[in-house]
Amino acid sequence: MIEPKNYKWFIEYTSPEEGHLHGIRTILHTAQTQYQKMDIMMCGSYGRSLVLDGKIQSTETDEFIYHESLVHPAMLTHPNPKRVFIVGGGEGATLRDVLKHKTVEYCMMVDIDQEVVEKSKEYLPEWSAGAFDDPRTDLRYMDARKYLEETSDTYDVIIIDISEPVEEGPAYLLFTKEFYEIVKERLSPDGTISLQAGTTALHQLLNFTAVNKTLSSVFPVVAPYDIPIPSFGLPWGFTLASKNIDPRKWTPKEVDDMIARRISSEPRFYDGIAHLGLFNLPKHIRKAMAEQTKIIEDNSPLFTYH
Amino acid sequence: MIEPKNYKWFIEYTSPEEGHLHGIRTILHTAQTQYQKMDIMMCGSYGRSLVLDGKIQSTETDEFIYHESLVHPAMLTHPNPKRVFIVGGGEGATLRDVLKHKTVEYCMMVDIDQEVVEKSKEYLPEWSAGAFDDPRTDLRYMDARKYLEETSDTYDVIIIDISEPVEEGPAYLLFTKEFYEIVKERLSPDGTISLQAGTTALHQLLNFTAVNKTLSSVFPVVAPYDIPIPSFGLPWGFTLASKNIDPRKWTPKEVDDMIARRISSEPRFYDGIAHLGLFNLPKHIRKAMAEQTKIIEDNSPLFTYH
Amino acid sequence: MIEPKNYKWFIEYTSPEEGHLHGIRTILHTAQTQYQKMDIMMCGSYGRSLVLDGKIQSTETDEFIYHESLVHPAMLTHPNPKRVFIVGGGEGATLRDVLKHKTVEYCMMVDIDQEVVEKSKEYLPEWSAGAFDDPRTDLRYMDARKYLEETSDTYDVIIIDISEPVEEGPAYLLFTKEFYEIVKERLSPDGTISLQAGTTALHQLLNFTAVNKTLSSVFPVVAPYDIPIPSFGLPWGFTLASKNIDPRKWTPKEVDDMIARRISSEPRFYDGIAHLGLFNLPKHIRKAMAEQTKIIEDNSPLFTYH
Amino acid sequence: MIEPKNYKWFIEYTSPEEGHLHGIRTILHTAQTQYQKMDIMMCGSYGRSLVLDGKIQSTETDEFIYHESLVHPAMLTHPNPKRVFIVGGGEGATLRDVLKHKTVEYCMMVDIDQEVVEKSKEYLPEWSAGAFDDPRTDLRYMDARKYLEETSDTYDVIIIDISEPVEEGPAYLLFTKEFYEIVKERLSPDGTISLQAGTTALHQLLNFTAVNKTLSSVFPVVAPYDIPIPSFGLPWGFTLASKNIDPRKWTPKEVDDMIARRISSEPRFYDGIAHLGLFNLPKHIRKAMAEQTKIIEDNSPLFTYH
Repeated sequence: MIEPKNYKWFIEYTSPEEGHLHGIRTILHTAQTQYQKMDIMMCGSYGRSLVLDGKIQSTETDEFIYHESLVHPAMLTHPNPKRVFIVGGGEGATLRDVLKHKTVEYCMMVDIDQEVVEKSKEYLPEWSAGAFDDPRTDLRYMDARKYLEETSDTYDVIIIDISEPVEEGPAYLLFTKEFYEIVKERLSPDGTISLQAGTTALHQLLNFTAVNKTLSSVFPVVAPYDIPIPSFGLPWGFTLASKNIDPRKWTPKEVDDMIARRISSEPRFYDGIAHLGLFNLPKHIRKAMAEQTKIIEDNSPLFTYH
Repeated sequence: MIEPKNYKWFIEYTSPEEGHLHGIRTILHTAQTQYQKMDIMMCGSYGRSLVLDGKIQSTETDEFIYHESLVHPAMLTHPNPKRVFIVGGGEGATLRDVLKHKTVEYCMMVDIDQEVVEKSKEYLPEWSAGAFDDPRTDLRYMDARKYLEETSDTYDVIIIDISEPVEEGPAYLLFTKEFYEIVKERLSPDGTISLQAGTTALHQLLNFTAVNKTLSSVFPVVAPYDIPIPSFGLPWGFTLASKNIDPRKWTPKEVDDMIARRISSEPRFYDGIAHLGLFNLPKHIRKAMAEQTKIIEDNSPLFTYH
Repeated sequence: MIEPKNYKWFIEYTSPEEGHLHGIRTILHTAQTQYQKMDIMMCGSYGRSLVLDGKIQSTETDEFIYHESLVHPAMLTHPNPKRVFIVGGGEGATLRDVLKHKTVEYCMMVDIDQEVVEKSKEYLPEWSAGAFDDPRTDLRYMDARKYLEETSDTYDVIIIDISEPVEEGPAYLLFTKEFYEIVKERLSPDGTISLQAGTTALHQLLNFTAVNKTLSSVFPVVAPYDIPIPSFGLPWGFTLASKNIDPRKWTPKEVDDMIARRISSEPRFYDGIAHLGLFNLPKHIRKAMAEQTKIIEDNSPLFTYH
Repeated sequence: MIEPKNYKWFIEYTSPEEGHLHGIRTILHTAQTQYQKMDIMMCGSYGRSLVLDGKIQSTETDEFIYHESLVHPAMLTHPNPKRVFIVGGGEGATLRDVLKHKTVEYCMMVDIDQEVVEKSKEYLPEWSAGAFDDPRTDLRYMDARKYLEETSDTYDVIIIDISEPVEEGPAYLLFTKEFYEIVKERLSPDGTISLQAGTTALHQLLNFTAVNKTLSSVFPVVAPYDIPIPSFGLPWGFTLASKNIDPRKWTPKEVDDMIARRISSEPRFYDGIAHLGLFNLPKHIRKAMAEQTKIIEDNSPLFTYH
């Protein structure tokens, strides 16, 4: 039997009756920001970890799986992405991976919480790896939805890297049909978006399936995918939606060729074979998506646990 | 923030600094068998669950993902499996899924722990679903390695459904090169095996990669694959090895045709698309396998956590 | 370092940032009664334990400390207790210890939750030890406050054995000045009461001090005392109040003489020396009591954790 | 029901099947010293807390109960203590409370772990409150037993403030008959010692009773006492032993008079009434002590949990 060798633990509850335990080596930073509770801890299994409101956002050891999954398929789905927009992504790793795409000329990143961005730069510098100082970066602290509503600029790729709502609160307004319509308006003709969409564990599929259903009411191509993120303790879902191109038609060789041509440093998780693994979901998850009818709207939110 | 709504918890440590928490609704059965500690609990998220020595074996909610992954790819890899041998699999669900293959005429299942089999029949009847009473079943309680060493019978498919060793003890003798050589000798010409091989979480890849390396020293075709089992809290690895046929070459349509023709009731998790998802592993896992040199031998065991 | 040897745990939170962990051997009974969640578990350190709404009520190993502390000092404070009234005390151990007093001719016990009483008889028979079948016992299931308000009967000793309120809800109505006035009206001239009054841990003294302050506004003699109950994980407070006699004036010898004369079987925890230990509280607890001004009233409840 | 409001927890196991949970606000310092694992944490219920090898030593909120209990009764038992010796006590609070006694002219404190002393000064300054800089203090880092064996100096009071052994290891050599004989040799004619002696929880009385039995084989007066230390989660035992005077004979008034005359600042926990509460133990604990026959010797250690 495996026996615990630590006595300081971080517990992430993934439901009221399920959780994940991480041995704490040290706590590097704890604060209440204007928006959320923030902890940066060194965990026994995953190294330095960013935790917001008790939920692991990413860890030293496996953040590359999360961020490559979120960024690369969407970026490759656009034939020549020059202008990119990131919603959230405070650690800077989404920005880092976007900027690896050689075609990118400009990337605006909008996060509401300046303190998370600054402390991530200080304690988790490998996440951003200099991306905040890249001349192509335009970092702003404001309400992303409000900005997109008001601007007339367009983007080739928009990446939404924020926590899904688990209870009442305004966060769900970045997961509604109305928001996706705003996003679509701001996309160029071959525009693509991607987002994290919550767990694909079979007993908690509500958020993932409803987000996909909602996207399908707005975009002609919606390509859901999932991958286990070990530090999350559950398989994790993402979705890519585009106005045009469907990445599920590519062969591994086509993906590998695009990676070689367009990404400046070789991904660790993502390649043509991993691409196949990502987009070929189990039958029961596809069935649950087919059966979902709920469309999330500003006036019709979805509270995963209520 | 998600808040716990239970006060009775089962903790499964997956490493000395990591664990998974399950809210206990009730404990249906607790015993110390001749070989191990056994608990059958009703957990909040996953329903009835079999726990041996503190480790979840399978749960009501997601056992189908585990058992279909273990059984169906291997069974389809043999063109006409009539005789099947199961090592372990005390809950009876591996046997259940084997017997769904219409070609099967005989299935011997060998488990060392009679008490686990009997209590599983009593408390987890859907796992075996009558399979123990099927006239094709030959259930025996004994040492599987010793039996395979001494018999001259051959089998078309051999499925190894036992826990990987996490510490010193004789269990590792079912994960060594010598054991796989015995198994290979007992296979018919198109013979295939499959086994669960431990987590594929990136910080605990030792067992998975060493088992695959060891199998590669014995079998011409070794096809590793993985899938998240939500109740395990970590992505989980399996391996299929054969004397001849490689299932990774099949298209989804070919898999779906075989399923329709050969399996008596439609799988819930597994189909042609899920097959693609299973066998297309992330790049970093393939890299770790390519770099692994350790071959597990009777005189050279592998202790995952030592 | 001490290492845990169990993987099933009951967590009793004693505050939102503090708790007590008990290894679960088995769960004997789990139910939602009409009034509360009930668990009867076998815990590693304390044996069979009754848990209501996640809070340990009493355990096989140390219930004698709790019940002797609650019952004997109050019973001895009355010179000749014949008629006794118990509020709550579903396990039957308070009743058992009352009936050990040879002078008792009649004991009414009123508990609101019949299911707790019946399951305690079944799973925890040593707690009541036959007391429910004693001809002096009059057990009723009803609202104790309402009964006391309406009856014109009087009692020599009234023992209040119920959980202190920790949040909103009607339970606090058995801890108010108005309730204590009703109780006082039902007492005979030398009448005495006792009750459990919550922890005396220095950071959670609110309930204990306010209950004592409230009693002091009703009774001429109020004698608070405390004792650690190991399974509660915190020191525990009780209070005795009387119309007349103050037990703090007794010498150990006087207590021992009364015990020998009036109690049919020798107590395990309580004697003359233990009596001194009980009633001589630390200076900081006496100071906190002296400083408390809050009187709990029907219209002015006390929510310990709000 | 009380619900947890934290997600970072320190677990102190008090036995393999029992523990105490403390919400961690922040971790101020973590290190592996030459001798032990050290954590200084801010806990939700008890403030700053020193934890060695996973065991709480003392906390901001209730250390005064522990240190006053350990120091004052022993100091008052000597009629005129001028020279004091402290074994352990790295936080400096035992020293602080010794130096409050106006008669003290010299106090040697011997701790083996310099790092604990220095980090306590830095992070827990109220514990020592300047005592390390008092001209009467002589602080040394060495093996206390070896020093006492070799010196010919004598002391009026010797206070032993070290963790009881819970497993194999040399720590038990400060709890043996041979060690207590060395200590006795170094005492002046009215000399007194005190020490912490482990929990008095009824299921874990082995250490407390054996230490008392061992002391009784060496000293004419042995006066055990206990008090709940809330942060320890269990009632805690101490023992005072002297060559002559028995403090259990004092009245509260006599104690209060001595405190007023001899202690420079008023204690928070300890006074004449608290003194009575301390030394009047429950009957079942006195019985367990009377039945204990084990004498701990250098060649016959006691392993509480083995």
